[in-house]
Amino acid sequence: MSRPAIMSGVLSPVVTPFRTDLSPDADKLVRQCRWLLSQDCGLAVFGTNSEANSLTVEEKIDLLDALVDGGIDPTRMMPGTGACAFPDAVKLTGHAVKRGCSGVLMLPPFYYKDVSDEGLFRAYSEVIQRVGDSRLRIYLYHFPQLSGVPITLTLIERLLRDYAEVVVGIKDSSGDWNNMQVMLTRFPGFAMFAGTEAVLLKNMRNGGAGCISATANINPAAIADLAANWQAPDAQGKQDEMNVLRTAVQALPLIPALKAVIAHHSGDPGWERIRPPLVELSAEQKAGLLRQLDDIGFAMPGLAKAA
Amino acid sequence: MSRPAIMSGVLSPVVTPFRTDLSPDADKLVRQCRWLLSQDCGLAVFGTNSEANSLTVEEKIDLLDALVDGGIDPTRMMPGTGACAFPDAVKLTGHAVKRGCSGVLMLPPFYYKDVSDEGLFRAYSEVIQRVGDSRLRIYLYHFPQLSGVPITLTLIERLLRDYAEVVVGIKDSSGDWNNMQVMLTRFPGFAMFAGTEAVLLKNMRNGGAGCISATANINPAAIADLAANWQAPDAQGKQDEMNVLRTAVQALPLIPALKAVIAHHSGDPGWERIRPPLVELSAEQKAGLLRQLDDIGFAMPGLAKAA
Repeated sequence: MSRPAIMSGVLSPVVTPFRTDLSPDADKLVRQCRWLLSQDCGLAVFGTNSEANSLTVEEKIDLLDALVDGGIDPTRMMPGTGACAFPDAVKLTGHAVKRGCSGVLMLPPFYYKDVSDEGLFRAYSEVIQRVGDSRLRIYLYHFPQLSGVPITLTLIERLLRDYAEVVVGIKDSSGDWNNMQVMLTRFPGFAMFAGTEAVLLKNMRNGGAGCISATANINPAAIADLAANWQAPDAQGKQDEMNVLRTAVQALPLIPALKAVIAHHSGDPGWERIRPPLVELSAEQKAGLLRQLDDIGFAMPGLAKAA
Repeated sequence: MSRPAIMSGVLSPVVTPFRTDLSPDADKLVRQCRWLLSQDCGLAVFGTNSEANSLTVEEKIDLLDALVDGGIDPTRMMPGTGACAFPDAVKLTGHAVKRGCSGVLMLPPFYYKDVSDEGLFRAYSEVIQRVGDSRLRIYLYHFPQLSGVPITLTLIERLLRDYAEVVVGIKDSSGDWNNMQVMLTRFPGFAMFAGTEAVLLKNMRNGGAGCISATANINPAAIADLAANWQAPDAQGKQDEMNVLRTAVQALPLIPALKAVIAHHSGDPGWERIRPPLVELSAEQKAGLLRQLDDIGFAMPGLAKAA
């Protein structure tokens, strides 16, 4: 079996729709992923913005099955599969590989803090060894603000030494451009995904692979276009333009804000449902955000409307 | 069905033994729990020191069954059942109640940070509502250094307003005596467990319930004795004495240190096995610790010896 190609471009950490009982709505997720693909946007399902850690492993396996069975191309998928307990990560990662996903985005175990590189190396190693499938491609997930467990340069070096064909890239959500730049220089060929489109152009100009960004849930086509055409003369203008939307959305709690925007533009208020510990935007926050987006002429062309 | 009594005294966050393949060793855990009970020490299995978040929900359910089926008294058990995804917390909590555990120790969901009290209230509320069993008794677990998600006073107030018969106490592992004192004053009758025996006497003198402490894995009888006899004239001397052991152990990574001590005193090196991202003590660390403990005449009377 051949190894999947290294992924690139823009992926959306797809927000997860819930039914009134807070169970995941697989059909709605399939429709949303279909729309994202139509906008040239890949699918980093089960990311931070997907509330992945508010879902059980079984729920994620069921959703993954629904997506692939629903015709969503798994070669465009990079599901998040990291977990605190390695058997959970093994189970979900193994399933993603079996279903043909091109890669997985893997948080380190994130409960214990101040852990050693040796301990994190072992955590990734357990998953790689136990999944034991040559098709496995891991993209590390560096998000110290939420995980509390940074992926250090020495950890990456160690993983590349033993697992260069498996550990093929990283998503850096730290917001620290300096850290990204050091990695781009130090690990050529290692696929670098920015955690925000705010540094997408910079990342592409420095040899990066693309971005996996919250806002790709609502602005996928524009971000994907910049990733594809970063060498075009008007690239900086496009970057500046999308930063305006980014700034408006990230002034609020990001996940409920994305859900509120999708709810509004699909005409389906059910999209606002969110699992605890997160909460919906207040009516005021929502109205303010939607007004701001109207002012800049924001739209979501082609998004499925509620019946 | 009657509600269990409010728990008090000393509980050990029992360290979890693993087989060579890193699967949990249920038989060995049953034996260890039997020993702890013989030392008048209760069982906060699946705590931080149990590597609970490195275990899957299924592994914890199986271990709980093995313990109760193995004759361990569930009324002496306060298993940790918090999880990032509320359905996981519901499943494990419901199982603990069904098996007759007197209480559960519940971390808040700990991936998302800077979450609101409203969101955390909803998280606990989902578990309480969905477990839907009048025997459920929750002890909150405040450990901001690892969870990154503090349990605030206003959250406790809100929970007590709606669920006073369910949310009956807290373990405070923050190490912040001031926070404990404020809670003791503000919430009389709310069972306060110190996260370390270093403040056990202070806690008892201020109306606290006891402690749930890492070191109760290796020094249970002495700590339990102080909790029971805190009004005795020699209480301060006993407190000072146990602080010496505490200081020696906590100078090292706590969980592997506890495992190294148990391995040494049981003659079973298998006790040292630990799941990533944690790692064993180095040979040097271990030798230094054991030497220090020898110097203070440390022993673990009655501990089962390896064959």
